[in-house]
Amino acid sequence: MTAHLVTDRVRAAYDVIDAVDRPEVWITLENRDAVFAQAAVLDERMRRGSATEIPLAGLLVAVKDNMDVAGLPTAAALPSFVFSPTVSSPAVARLQAAGAIVLGKTNMDQFATGLVGTRSPYGAVRHATRPEYISGGSSSGSAVAVALGIVDIALGTDTAGSGRVPAALHGLVGIKPTLGLIPTIGVVPACRSYDSVTVFAQDLGLAQRALAVIVGPDRADPSSRSWPSTTRLAPRGITRIGIPAPADLKLLSADAQAAFTAAVDSVVQRGMQTVTVDLAPFLRAAVLLYDGALVAERYEAAGASVAAGEPGLDPVVAQIVRAAGTIPAHRLVEDRALLDTLRTQALRVFDDYQGVKSGIDALVLPTTTEHPTLAAVAADPVAINARMGTFTNFVNLFDLSAIAVPAGTADGSPFGVSFIAPAFADQVIIDIAAKFLGQDSRPALLPTDTLDLVVFGAHLRGQPLNWQLTDLGARLAGDVRTATAYRMVRLPGEPARPGVSPVGSGGTALVGERWTLTKSALADFLTCLPPGMSIGPIQLEDGEQVLGFQCSNSDGAEDISAYGGWVRYLAEGDHTDPAVWPPAG
Amino acid sequence: MTAHLVTDRVRAAYDVIDAVDRPEVWITLENRDAVFAQAAVLDERMRRGSATEIPLAGLLVAVKDNMDVAGLPTAAALPSFVFSPTVSSPAVARLQAAGAIVLGKTNMDQFATGLVGTRSPYGAVRHATRPEYISGGSSSGSAVAVALGIVDIALGTDTAGSGRVPAALHGLVGIKPTLGLIPTIGVVPACRSYDSVTVFAQDLGLAQRALAVIVGPDRADPSSRSWPSTTRLAPRGITRIGIPAPADLKLLSADAQAAFTAAVDSVVQRGMQTVTVDLAPFLRAAVLLYDGALVAERYEAAGASVAAGEPGLDPVVAQIVRAAGTIPAHRLVEDRALLDTLRTQALRVFDDYQGVKSGIDALVLPTTTEHPTLAAVAADPVAINARMGTFTNFVNLFDLSAIAVPAGTADGSPFGVSFIAPAFADQVIIDIAAKFLGQDSRPALLPTDTLDLVVFGAHLRGQPLNWQLTDLGARLAGDVRTATAYRMVRLPGEPARPGVSPVGSGGTALVGERWTLTKSALADFLTCLPPGMSIGPIQLEDGEQVLGFQCSNSDGAEDISAYGGWVRYLAEGDHTDPAVWPPAG
Repeated sequence: MTAHLVTDRVRAAYDVIDAVDRPEVWITLENRDAVFAQAAVLDERMRRGSATEIPLAGLLVAVKDNMDVAGLPTAAALPSFVFSPTVSSPAVARLQAAGAIVLGKTNMDQFATGLVGTRSPYGAVRHATRPEYISGGSSSGSAVAVALGIVDIALGTDTAGSGRVPAALHGLVGIKPTLGLIPTIGVVPACRSYDSVTVFAQDLGLAQRALAVIVGPDRADPSSRSWPSTTRLAPRGITRIGIPAPADLKLLSADAQAAFTAAVDSVVQRGMQTVTVDLAPFLRAAVLLYDGALVAERYEAAGASVAAGEPGLDPVVAQIVRAAGTIPAHRLVEDRALLDTLRTQALRVFDDYQGVKSGIDALVLPTTTEHPTLAAVAADPVAINARMGTFTNFVNLFDLSAIAVPAGTADGSPFGVSFIAPAFADQVIIDIAAKFLGQDSRPALLPTDTLDLVVFGAHLRGQPLNWQLTDLGARLAGDVRTATAYRMVRLPGEPARPGVSPVGSGGTALVGERWTLTKSALADFLTCLPPGMSIGPIQLEDGEQVLGFQCSNSDGAEDISAYGGWVRYLAEGDHTDPAVWPPAG
Repeated sequence: MTAHLVTDRVRAAYDVIDAVDRPEVWITLENRDAVFAQAAVLDERMRRGSATEIPLAGLLVAVKDNMDVAGLPTAAALPSFVFSPTVSSPAVARLQAAGAIVLGKTNMDQFATGLVGTRSPYGAVRHATRPEYISGGSSSGSAVAVALGIVDIALGTDTAGSGRVPAALHGLVGIKPTLGLIPTIGVVPACRSYDSVTVFAQDLGLAQRALAVIVGPDRADPSSRSWPSTTRLAPRGITRIGIPAPADLKLLSADAQAAFTAAVDSVVQRGMQTVTVDLAPFLRAAVLLYDGALVAERYEAAGASVAAGEPGLDPVVAQIVRAAGTIPAHRLVEDRALLDTLRTQALRVFDDYQGVKSGIDALVLPTTTEHPTLAAVAADPVAINARMGTFTNFVNLFDLSAIAVPAGTADGSPFGVSFIAPAFADQVIIDIAAKFLGQDSRPALLPTDTLDLVVFGAHLRGQPLNWQLTDLGARLAGDVRTATAYRMVRLPGEPARPGVSPVGSGGTALVGERWTLTKSALADFLTCLPPGMSIGPIQLEDGEQVLGFQCSNSDGAEDISAYGGWVRYLAEGDHTDPAVWPPAG
């Protein structure tokens, strides 16, 4: 590491920008001097030891042109639409506050209407490594800026699949969180009911770290949502992944089908179970986004520009939006009702019935159907685009969360799959994706409003009651050691379990595990406690106070404090000569 | 009580039906023999001691004609619309399962479009006691059936105020729960996004008991919602009620204004605080329901009938629905976006800012503006109706909960006020309404997914830490006594507080209080515990196991078990001669 870490990173980025000669990636680039000035400030802060205040210091970011960055114009890829926001969209502001630097605003399908990346007066965005092919869209420039290595992460938006399709075509990670988790104020709407801000990165861990910074409600955003109490913080111990029937993959080439099959094989090799599910209600909803009345939402956003026939309108986008202006409102109400019905039907695959854990944790699907050339899309702009949304369109309509991850190649291009789950299962699918990629998923926990609980005995990993934690969606946070203020006894009865009690001075430091639970799960856990056990504050060796298991009455039980922990006692304990508490005398 | 309680109640109801000669109240009456047969079955079940299975045994119910009752036609007050459902709407089915008997289907403003009760081919429903005046609607027959004493409770529906306005005009209680708490499957939609099932009763306690039976999600209903973890189970200790500025009451007569002022005085006399709030964003939204594009939802429900010009169409309803058919969808999207913005702005009055409890618990408003005659409404059917919804229209649009209660008289008619609060504050406003009416609100707790916690010391009512419970929205459930298996010590330090520990055999029975908390609140409460305290299972004298406060280490503290509880110790305890635990020797 040098004293000019951020400045060096910025310089490297500009070298790439200059080298790749891809002007169509950007609609507006930030002033270079201004960027270097920001970098210098960050380097100075780092030098002064403020690194913890700026956890993303020096992370370079590209922002889709439909998201406000204070000081840069927002145009949503229509020159006449341009305006100069004075306030950044919360996702941008939160990244900047964490030390990230915005390099510029990226090209996109106009008004985020498209999955191809070609519908822009700023030029069709070419694929990063196969320039005769499309980049995918609508977050085209954002994906390519990451794929070319110019920026570390990019912000996109996703209504039909705009944050996932271009990720798949470039072998990137694209995370589309649950609607409302990232504020959409300062974002030009595409379909305001179904718009989500997304993150692109080459690496899942990096995407997660950025996401952890930008997720969270904003009081000014009517669509903001908070994590519900039923949020799982981790997948179940036995993870069940829904897969499509072979017939549902018929739009894919033989090579893409093989890539998908290989991905499913990986899922199984990573220890997850697969089960074939009925995709019919999902696929039926997918066509409603453009072919139904929901497209009227696009007129609300872009109708005035289209009706005015402004210069720079993309002809395909204009045609879609114009048609949306004549749809009667009652048809929109009808389609929404149909959508509700399909959703209720579709989402049953995620349910457990009558206590039987038959539901799936996530669905795995090809992210998109194909990787067409620019020429093919120019020749048939609507049908190819529609096909490419087959496996993405329904996600926001059904209020689901999704993550697109790389999964090999097909037909000479990167191939990708998406893990899809109900709203607020974002952390679950990130964990599943990490498992699929063979990575650790620890860098950041998305859900907030959680508590940590220290366990010492039968609830440790590998011990007989650990399932009580994992069933409740708890997440292992690591190993801990208490202050030297406790004693551990072996409680009478079976299964063998310890009791931990505070003893003031002269106690022992005990090892345990720290698990993170939602408040609701912690309360459920409390109701499982047997008489004599309780939960209260425990002091750790570093002075932190965390909730932990305690034993209210250990009189007469064997003192096993000397082992320092339950696992060691089980391995080494001499069970024949108990030391009884309280000591005699 | 006689051996024929239910049968007697039914007979009395038919006597009233015959005596009042109000055929316009009903669209379909259940067959009398069938009702008496049901009554006989219920009497027999009661005789056999099954009363606990049928907590509402013999409760007589009227059901609005837009809600399905298996075996009776549903027409929504349009004869040609009629169909014969084979399944009852969940609210109906749940009441019947609890022993209630449906007497028939009630008249209503056609397709629930109106607040007047006159828009029906089955006749304008006359007011129960002032027959030249309107009943209010659209749940007109339901309200009048309760007001005349024919039935004990009635089910209505409420989009713009249909479950509250007729309650106000008859001095009834009308509860409009949060959208989605009562399933709306088997209900003919008015505006499907904003329709709620409601309960009318003469008595708040009875309405609550019925509501507790019918609230709850249904898997088949896409709009079903569950109680979130942040649900308050009771108002805050200091309850703040928002009131309108005098200028916002200018639509009311002098007499009605005086009645409202008296109601506000009552609020204050009952120990609640009042604060004037800005009603502007609420009133702005109210006009959107009919004057904006949201009315298109009514076309989705009734458009086909209106377009077909079916006989029996009410001309005013037909005119409203017909106009709704030509609204473009993008205008609906725009109005929904405007509504979201207004809602965010309006609901800030309920917020606490930066830890300062400046927000209100509920708003109190006149339920409606006036009580017009049938003749006045006939002469000016749209404008009067619109005015009457001034204080009710915004409630469902803003996703609020509301309860209408009687508040004296004005201009010779009953006058009513409504308490209004955010979604899921249903129990809070019921409690506030009970306080306003000088009644107990204990008969039933609506929110589910709660836990009980027994406290023994500083958290008891009147003790210094009780605010920790009430701040978290906890609700007192009553006094309890433990099994004879505990000891109580006075812990060292200030403030004075006890420690309770299990001692196996030979312990003492201790008195405490049982509080109900949401799981989230219980978890928050756990984080307030000082070291040495914990929460775990406590056994009560009747063998029930409940979570309770425990002390992990009471060695050396004064044993005060003999007092049987903390309050008695505080009153009688001899603090000069502590008995130390464990006993010496």
